[in-house]
Amino acid sequence: MIRVNHKKLEQFVSGVFQALQVPAPDADVAAKVLVAADLRGVDSHGVVRVNPRTFYARDLKEGRINPKPDIRVVRDSPGSVVVDGDGGLGMVVGHRAMQLATEKARASGIGFAVVRNSRHFGMSAYYSMMALSEGLIGLAMTNASRQVVPTFGRESRYGTNPISLAAPADKELPFVLDMATTTAAAGKLEIAARNEQRIPIGWALDENAQDTTDPRTGQKARLLLPLGSTREGGSHKGYGLAIMVEILCGVLSGSVVALNDAKSADRGHFFGAMDIGFFRPAEEFKADMDRMLGELRATPTLEDHERVYVAGDVEQNTTVDRTANGIPLHPSVLEDLQALGKEHRVNYDLES
Amino acid sequence: MIRVNHKKLEQFVSGVFQALQVPAPDADVAAKVLVAADLRGVDSHGVVRVNPRTFYARDLKEGRINPKPDIRVVRDSPGSVVVDGDGGLGMVVGHRAMQLATEKARASGIGFAVVRNSRHFGMSAYYSMMALSEGLIGLAMTNASRQVVPTFGRESRYGTNPISLAAPADKELPFVLDMATTTAAAGKLEIAARNEQRIPIGWALDENAQDTTDPRTGQKARLLLPLGSTREGGSHKGYGLAIMVEILCGVLSGSVVALNDAKSADRGHFFGAMDIGFFRPAEEFKADMDRMLGELRATPTLEDHERVYVAGDVEQNTTVDRTANGIPLHPSVLEDLQALGKEHRVNYDLES
Repeated sequence: MIRVNHKKLEQFVSGVFQALQVPAPDADVAAKVLVAADLRGVDSHGVVRVNPRTFYARDLKEGRINPKPDIRVVRDSPGSVVVDGDGGLGMVVGHRAMQLATEKARASGIGFAVVRNSRHFGMSAYYSMMALSEGLIGLAMTNASRQVVPTFGRESRYGTNPISLAAPADKELPFVLDMATTTAAAGKLEIAARNEQRIPIGWALDENAQDTTDPRTGQKARLLLPLGSTREGGSHKGYGLAIMVEILCGVLSGSVVALNDAKSADRGHFFGAMDIGFFRPAEEFKADMDRMLGELRATPTLEDHERVYVAGDVEQNTTVDRTANGIPLHPSVLEDLQALGKEHRVNYDLES
Repeated sequence: MIRVNHKKLEQFVSGVFQALQVPAPDADVAAKVLVAADLRGVDSHGVVRVNPRTFYARDLKEGRINPKPDIRVVRDSPGSVVVDGDGGLGMVVGHRAMQLATEKARASGIGFAVVRNSRHFGMSAYYSMMALSEGLIGLAMTNASRQVVPTFGRESRYGTNPISLAAPADKELPFVLDMATTTAAAGKLEIAARNEQRIPIGWALDENAQDTTDPRTGQKARLLLPLGSTREGGSHKGYGLAIMVEILCGVLSGSVVALNDAKSADRGHFFGAMDIGFFRPAEEFKADMDRMLGELRATPTLEDHERVYVAGDVEQNTTVDRTANGIPLHPSVLEDLQALGKEHRVNYDLES
C-alpha cells in the first residue's frame, strides 16, 4: 500500500472528471465525495471506482452519465423538493439535493429532497454528514443495482439500498450510521476477494442460490442476502428495510430499480434534514446525545473485546489517521489512476 | 384456543379501561389499537397485555399511567409538532399524535410528530397504517424498555425500538413493514416459552452474556441481540438502527430510555406522514407500487418454499381470517380477562 495525500488525490480525480467534460466546480464536488469515502476507510466507495474499465469514467465516456446535467427542481413545497438529476454524476446531484433539503429544514424544521434520474452517488454518509456541520440531523438513502434476493427467493430483485443517518453531539463524537441493508455490503466481498479470504455463510449465494464461502463466486452470482441472512435470523427485516428505501428513493421519485424493465444506470435518492431547534433546544439535545453515546461507549464488554463502539466511531478514527498520514492505496488502484491520467493528460504525481 | 369476536373483545377491553378511569372515547381507541394487533396475529402486543399483573391495567391502577392525560402540543411548525403525552396510555397519545402528523402532511407534504412523556403504545403498524386509509405514507417508531445489548457488549442499554413504514398500492396489498430492530422481537420468546420450544442461537443471551436456546432464560436475562446477531452477521447494523430510533424518539423529544437514570415507564415516539401528491402523481406512485410488489411476490423461490412475501402479507391474511372467524385466545389469556372483568365489574361474555 502507498499512502497518498488526500488533497492531491482530490485534485487529480477532479482533473480526470474535468477531462471528461465535467465543469470544474462539479468535478471538485465529485472528487471530494469520493475521497471522503477513502478518508473514512470506506474504500469500496472511493477512488477505486475511478478507473478505465467501470463506473464513473467509463459511464461518462460512453454517455450513460451526463457530464453537464441540467439539475432541476421539478416540485417544490415548504418542506420538500423533487429534483431531476438529468443523468448527472450522482455525487453532484446528491450534493445539490442535500443542500436543498438543508435549506428547507432551516426554514420549516424538516426538509426532504427526493431525487430521480440520477446515477451512483458514492458513500451515503457524505450527504447525511453535510447536515452535521450545520448542527442538523441528516438522512440519506439510495436505491442501487439489483443484486439482493428477497427472503425465500432465488433471484435478485433489488439492491443493497443503504440507509445513513447522522446526528450531532457536543463533546462526544457524533452518531453516523451508514449501512447497506444486506448482511454485508458488496464492497466486503471485493475486499475478501482481494485478500484471498473466505466469506462467512450468510453473506451471499452462488449461481444456484446455494450458500457459498467464496467471495468471487458471490461477486459473480450477484445474489447477496438481506441483513439477517435467514428467515430465522431476521432476513425478512433486512429485505423489508431495503424495500422501504426503494419506496422512498425509487417509487416516490419515479426512478425505481426494483422493476424488471428498470433502466440499469438510473438511480433515485432520498435526502432529509431536521433542524433540531424546531423540536427541542439544541443544547439539551446535544447534552442528551453526549450522555447516551458516552454510556454506550462505556458498556462493559464481552471477553475478547476491548470496547463497544457507536456507529461511525471506527470511520472517524480512520479519517483522523488518513488525513494526517495519507490514504493507503493498493498498487493496482494507483496503476488505474495513472492510466487514466495518461489517457486524459492529467498530471499524475500522487506517489511523490 | 377459543375464537373470540373482535368487536366483543374491543368492547370488553374498553370497558376495563373505562373502569380504570379512562374516558370512554380514549378507552375505545386504546382497545381498538390492542385488538388490531390480535387481528394481525401480533399476539404479543394485543389483549394479552391487559391482565391483572402487568402493563396497562396494573400501571393505570398504580399511577404509572395517567388515565386522564392533558395531551398538549408544546411546539408547532408547518411541518412538525412536539407532543407531550402527560403520562397517558401510549395508544391514546400515539393515535392523537399520528392524526396531527397526518394533518401536517396534508397541508405541507410532510408531517412529523415527536412525542415525549408517553407510555407503551402497542403495535407500531397501527399508527403507520392510519396513513394508508388516507392514501398517505405512514411512519411510526418508538423507544422501548432496556433489554438489548450493543455489539460487543454484555449489558443491555436500549430497547427493541421498532420501525414501521406503511405505503399504499392500488390493486396489490399495501407494503406494511413493522420490525423490532432485534433479530427476534421479545414476543417471539414469549411464544416459544408458551409452546415449550427452543429458540435459535443468535436471538438472546443468558445472564452471563452467553448464548442460550432456552426462551425462559432469555426472557429472564433480558439481553436480546440486535438484528444480525453477531458482528460477522451484521449486528452493528441492528444496533445502529435501534440508536437511530432512540435519537428520533427519545433524544429529539426528551424522553430517552437509553440513559442509566431514565424513568422506566417513560416513552418517546416518532410519527411521520407523507402526502404522495407533493412528490409525484398518486396514481403513478400506486401503479409503480403495484408493479414492484407484484414482481417481488412472483420471485422464483428456493426449494421448500411456496412463495416470496412482501412485508405485511402474512399479517393481512391473518386479519382477514380473524375478522371473519374470531381471534384465537389462549385459555390463560381468557382467564386473565375474566378476572379483570370480575374485579372491575365489566360484563364478560367473550366465550359465548
